[in-house]
Amino acid sequence: MTFEVLVEVRLLAGIADPQGATIERSLPALGFAGVSAVRVGKAIRFCVDAPDAAAAETLAGEVARRLLSNPVIEEATVTVCQPSPTATGGTQQP
Amino acid sequence: MTFEVLVEVRLLAGIADPQGATIERSLPALGFAGVSAVRVGKAIRFCVDAPDAAAAETLAGEVARRLLSNPVIEEATVTVCQPSPTATGGTQQP
Repeated sequence: MTFEVLVEVRLLAGIADPQGATIERSLPALGFAGVSAVRVGKAIRFCVDAPDAAAAETLAGEVARRLLSNPVIEEATVTVCQPSPTATGGTQQP
Repeated sequence: MTFEVLVEVRLLAGIADPQGATIERSLPALGFAGVSAVRVGKAIRFCVDAPDAAAAETLAGEVARRLLSNPVIEEATVTVCQPSPTATGGTQQP
């Protein structure tokens, strides 16, 4: 079964985020008020072939830990969306 | 009230994703099989001061449209998480 997985990689609290700070400084010039604490991370989506959701989550977590995040400065959250036989994606097979 | 908001910015289907392709090519060398259709996007989190969740979503959607995404090649999804008086964040106020 094919599961669609979302891995969100965020900078740990306390790690400087220049991208987020730049966005935050730009907002008043565009007329936006009341937005604060902007943090920019990565959202990586992929499809996993696995027998069940738990196996998909385990595999995706391992991929996130070993390849997608740097645990010194980042944390990763894995979300298994649903079995996706018809999910859109670049190289996915039906 | 302060709401924590997640904006996920993804490349539109059909737009080339070299980062995702590079990750996908790296996986077999690390011993991972069954992962496909890797797409890399951005996950931007921030706090919004708004009277209710609908107003927070409207403001965040406008920020996503005007500042955080390029609609020619990207799409943005806004998720309002919950009122977050105690959420962690760089410059957030209690």
